[in-house]
This record gives sequence, C-alpha cells and structure tokens, in this order.
Amino acid sequence: MSIDYQGLAVKGVQALSPYQPGKPISELARELGLNPSEIIKLASNENPLGPSEKAVAAVEHALTDLCLYPDGNGFELKQKLSARLGVGADQITLGNGSNDVLEVIARCFAGSDSEVVFSQYAFAVYPLVTQAIGATPVTVPAKDWGHDLDAMAAAVTEHTRLVFVANPNNPTGTVHDADAIEAFLGKIPEDVLVVLDEAYCEYMTGKKDPDGVALLNRFPNLIVCRTFSKAWGLAGLRVGYSLSSPAIADILNRVRQPFNVSSVALAAATAVLDDEDYLQRSRAANAAGLKQLEEAFDQMGLRYIPSSGNFIAVEVGPQAMGVYQALLAHGVIVRPIAGYGMPNHLRVTVGLPAENEHFIDALSKALAAAGQGA
Amino acid sequence: MSIDYQGLAVKGVQALSPYQPGKPISELARELGLNPSEIIKLASNENPLGPSEKAVAAVEHALTDLCLYPDGNGFELKQKLSARLGVGADQITLGNGSNDVLEVIARCFAGSDSEVVFSQYAFAVYPLVTQAIGATPVTVPAKDWGHDLDAMAAAVTEHTRLVFVANPNNPTGTVHDADAIEAFLGKIPEDVLVVLDEAYCEYMTGKKDPDGVALLNRFPNLIVCRTFSKAWGLAGLRVGYSLSSPAIADILNRVRQPFNVSSVALAAATAVLDDEDYLQRSRAANAAGLKQLEEAFDQMGLRYIPSSGNFIAVEVGPQAMGVYQALLAHGVIVRPIAGYGMPNHLRVTVGLPAENEHFIDALSKALAAAGQGA
Repeated sequence: MSIDYQGLAVKGVQALSPYQPGKPISELARELGLNPSEIIKLASNENPLGPSEKAVAAVEHALTDLCLYPDGNGFELKQKLSARLGVGADQITLGNGSNDVLEVIARCFAGSDSEVVFSQYAFAVYPLVTQAIGATPVTVPAKDWGHDLDAMAAAVTEHTRLVFVANPNNPTGTVHDADAIEAFLGKIPEDVLVVLDEAYCEYMTGKKDPDGVALLNRFPNLIVCRTFSKAWGLAGLRVGYSLSSPAIADILNRVRQPFNVSSVALAAATAVLDDEDYLQRSRAANAAGLKQLEEAFDQMGLRYIPSSGNFIAVEVGPQAMGVYQALLAHGVIVRPIAGYGMPNHLRVTVGLPAENEHFIDALSKALAAAGQGA
Repeated sequence: MSIDYQGLAVKGVQALSPYQPGKPISELARELGLNPSEIIKLASNENPLGPSEKAVAAVEHALTDLCLYPDGNGFELKQKLSARLGVGADQITLGNGSNDVLEVIARCFAGSDSEVVFSQYAFAVYPLVTQAIGATPVTVPAKDWGHDLDAMAAAVTEHTRLVFVANPNNPTGTVHDADAIEAFLGKIPEDVLVVLDEAYCEYMTGKKDPDGVALLNRFPNLIVCRTFSKAWGLAGLRVGYSLSSPAIADILNRVRQPFNVSSVALAAATAVLDDEDYLQRSRAANAAGLKQLEEAFDQMGLRYIPSSGNFIAVEVGPQAMGVYQALLAHGVIVRPIAGYGMPNHLRVTVGLPAENEHFIDALSKALAAAGQGA
C-alpha cells in the first residue's frame, strides 16, 4: 500500500503555491560564486540604512536571556505602542511579523464558507491565507494599478467576512487618501471586518494621508496592521502588530501562538520606538532614493507606477524575466512580479544612493542587451 | 447597531481558552516590587545554564543584518541538521518554535470533520491547535500518568487524521522506550499521521530510548518534532523543526509563514549545533538536578512522577495552588498544572543546584504554612 500523503492534506492546502520570497543574497552568492558583499539586494523592501543602534543595543542586552521564553504578553512593547499611538494595550495583538497577524485574522474570522475580498495586484499573503483556510478569494480588478475601493465595497456579499486593503499597496506602491479610506469604511457593513494593512504607512508623504489608528473608534469592524520590518528596519527579527477593538484583539490573542514573538524581537522593537531619529532618516533616505530612481527612469524613457512605499514598480516590457536574470548576473537582485499578474514590471526596493546608481547602470546594460537580443 | 465581534469568530476559536504560560520574571517583579535578579523561575522548562557562547556569538555576528529578511528556506540550518541527523534537507520543516510546526501540521492535515487523538495530561498545545481548526479532540485516559499507547491506537477511527505522542511527555515527564513506540506505530493505519513530539528527547537517559529519526524510513506516516528551546537553550529565539517524508514536508512548507524563523534564530541554531559540549553539559546538569530534587522530595515524603525531561511533577496535595502562591511570595515561580487536570501537582523545572536548593527551602516553608493553615 502506498499512500498519497499530499492527497491527505486539507483541500485549500493541496492547491497552495507557497509565497515566493526575494532571492536571498547568500543564495545568489552560492550560485554565482560571488562574495555576498558584492551583491546588491533591492528585492524585499528592506530598509537600506542598516539597523537602528538602539535596536542593536537592545538585542545585545537581551542575549543573556536567550534560554528564557519571551514574555508571551509582550508587556513592555505593548505599553510603548499604547503610549505612542494612543490606544489601549488591550487593543494590540503582536505577531511574528505582520504576516502572522494577517494569517491569524483570517483563521479567526473566515472559514470554508466565507468570501474574502482583496484587490488585484495586492499583497500576495492575502490570497495565500485565504486559500489555506479553504475560504473563497474574491479578487477585485484594480484601477490604475491601485485598489478600486468602490468596486471592492460593491463586491461585499452576505458571505464576505473579511476585506483586505493595503495602503500603501505592495507591489504597486499605490495609496488612497484619508477621505477615500473613510468613505470606503462607511460603505462596509459592520459585521464585515476590514483589515487596513499599513505596513508602509511611515513612507507616505501626502497631505491627506490616512491614519488607520484614528479611525478605530469610529469603525469597530476595522483592524489596522503595521510592521517593524520596513521603516523601523527590523525585518530579520519578525515583529508586526494589529490594532483593533479589545473584543477582536481578545480573539486574535487566543489563536496566535503563545510565544510568537521572540525575546530579542520584543527588545529591539521596544527600543527602536525611542529612535525617532532613525525613523526620520529612513523616511528622508527613502524620499531621496525614490526621486533618484524616478529621474533615472524618466531619462531612460521607462514608465513606472508612482509609489508611496519604499519600492517602485517599473515597466520594462515583456522581457522582464530576462532583464531580471541579466540584473542577477550583474549582482543586483530585484523582484519579478509576474506572480502578481504584472509580467512587464519589476519591483525595485529603494536603496542607498550608490546602490540605486549601481542598479540603474545594470538596468541600462540589461535593457540594451535585451534590446539587441530581441 | 452593536455587533458581537466575538460571535463572528469561527466556531472552534470562540470556545478557545489561550495557553497559560509560566509567569514571567518581569511580571512577578512588578507585582511584588522585587528586583528581577532575586526571582527564581522554574516554571517553563528552560535551560538553567544560560545560552551557549557559540549561539550568542552567532547572534552578535548577525546583528548587522537585522534590516534584512531571514532566509525563508533556512538553507544553512537545514544543511547542518541534515548532516547531523542523516536526513534529507527536503525532509525538514522549520518552525517558530516547535509550537509553530505542531500548529501547521494540524492545519494542513485535519479539518472540522477530523478527529485528533492525544493523551490525557499531554502537552497543552495539542488540544489548542485541534480546537482552533474546529476538529474533534479525542483525549485518551492516561495510564500511570503516561500515554496509554494501546488505548491510543484503539482510539483511532476512520475519522482520525492525526495522533500526537509526546515522548518524553510534558508535564508528566513519562516516556516510552523504543520497543513500545515501534509497536505503537505498527498499529496505526498508514493514512493516519503520527506526530512524535521529541521536544525533550535530549534529556532521556534510558538504555532503550527511542529515536524518532531512525523510524522515519519505516513509517511514512511519522512526523518527528524537535526543538532548540530545551537542551539547546534557545527558548527566547523560537526555533523548532519537524522531520518527515519529503512529500509531507512539502505540504508543511507551503503553509508555514515564509519568514517564520528570524535571522538571529537561524544563526544561533546553526551555531549551537556545533556546541556539543553545551549539549552534554545541559544533560549532565539536568541529571544531577533531577537527582537533587528527587532526593529532597523523598526526604520530605512527597510523591513525584519519575521524569525523563528537564522538569518534575511533584504531588503537594489539594492545596497546590496555595503552595504555588506561597512559593511566589518567596520569589520562586513554578507551574501549577490544574489546567492539565493535575490539581494536586506542581511542575518544577530542574534548575542550577543553588536554585533547586532555594526552591526546596521555599517549598518546605510553604508546605509547613499550608499545613498550619489547614
């Protein structure tokens, strides 16, 4: 007797294709026989500044306690977030990255008889967590690469339990202003939960940027998700969180794993919240780097989607995978986004000035080579 | 309109009581106004030696890359585990602690129409992950505080998808030898997955201790889970893993979060595997500490369950919660296990010699006070 063990998996899981992360530097170094220091990775929307010194010091301080389980309640981090954001500690759910919180929300509030609404070109984790629980994904066509909020509100049915809104959105960088988000929330029935994913909110530079936290009191069905992986520079440690009503947070905290955030991650996140200077430098470096990339794309005659994140999607045409491969050969890792239904674009994370320049040079060469080859 | 948001949660989740972790030192320090260094925590089966110097050095080395996402495939750690254990890297699934792997297994292979079998007095995470997915828990009465493997095999029905076996078991410390585990596996249908949780396997000191890894080739339905949180001393970082057939690992790896293990955790776990001396010191200290506690309990006339873990369940009678509280007042945190259906026992982690002595003194005083109060 030979058993098909994959056939024993629950239905949603059987059809699941795993998330495709950006190629790690170590992997490309092994493949090309390069020194990792020669490789530039602009593939995963990481903060190019290196970590906050305060975060590093906090991890070093926590090293003596590696044998001890983390504080499963994250007391100190919640206190700090609570004071900073003006919410109760009982409104916070900590996660192993915001990915963890997004997954826990889906597992708590949607099942195999539920519909989950999100936009075309939205963050890949939404369809993944939806499929893993066997719920029905409802993908609403995008408008100008961004969420069509009116169409998303119209897509809500009696079976809808969750709506995911990424603002700014990854991988397109599109954003909606405060009025649009409020108008959208006003259209969603109160028994449908709206997850406003603000992973990139610190990079917004508009005059009417929305602030999900300020909307929590008015919309009890709202869950705001944020992360320490982007502007706060702690992607390697995995810390994110959600903000919601205490009732919703209570449910989420029952289902998250009891020690889902490591002790060093708790220490670093708590410390970095005191490093306002780091946050401001992250923002300033990103704004300057985005400008550098946009100007280069303009000069090269390449179209791009204006971005409110720390990345930008540039249109290089149907040979995008070839351009991606050519960039790899130049030691530059960016992200192909054909998996998002954007086969003509590459997503490039904003790097340091020299990294951006290196990428632009490599891109010019790759495009020239692709043009000759076509 | 006022919505009952807890009522919107999926059925299994609504009834869920979260895992109750051991009281953190910081929390007791706040409550009693004590200095954390005055408190002894023997509540969470943590390694009392402090971390391996090799692990600490690896974390320090990884600090420059805190901004970068971890290697989602855990390439280096899998290579090291593969070589050490003699399994393929494609048989390994890494988790944010073994808790993560246990949860992912349940979510992959059991659903609301499934039965999940485990023992009375077994690790609390088994019923939690079972309930969260809405599956039916089948709790098999224990025999002499340990798993009744014959009864567990007999409890398997056509609806059973998973059986959890903890060996050694937490919180009782009971263990089955290699013959018993093999005989049990031989009775389980091949389409029912058996999760052999060996979180405490490094502490076993018997002559016929089972080794789940050696059984993988013979039993394709076997999944072995292990952790770096106990004998390897990295509970704060959260790293565990499962070993299984490649087909099962492929499914688990689709569902685990893509960056579920942090970069510093990967670095520390990879490094500690080279610290065989640390492992041997952990084992030796545990054996000596267990002996110290057993001799003290014998002198005090207290019954205990012989343990193959790094903890021991001692019977203090129906006033166990009062004894627990009295120990807290003496600055000693142990674990009440009424939640496991063992209201007369306290579970005590094996500490350093001085910690064990401090605990024994405090226990004597607490029992005397309880006796006077009765």
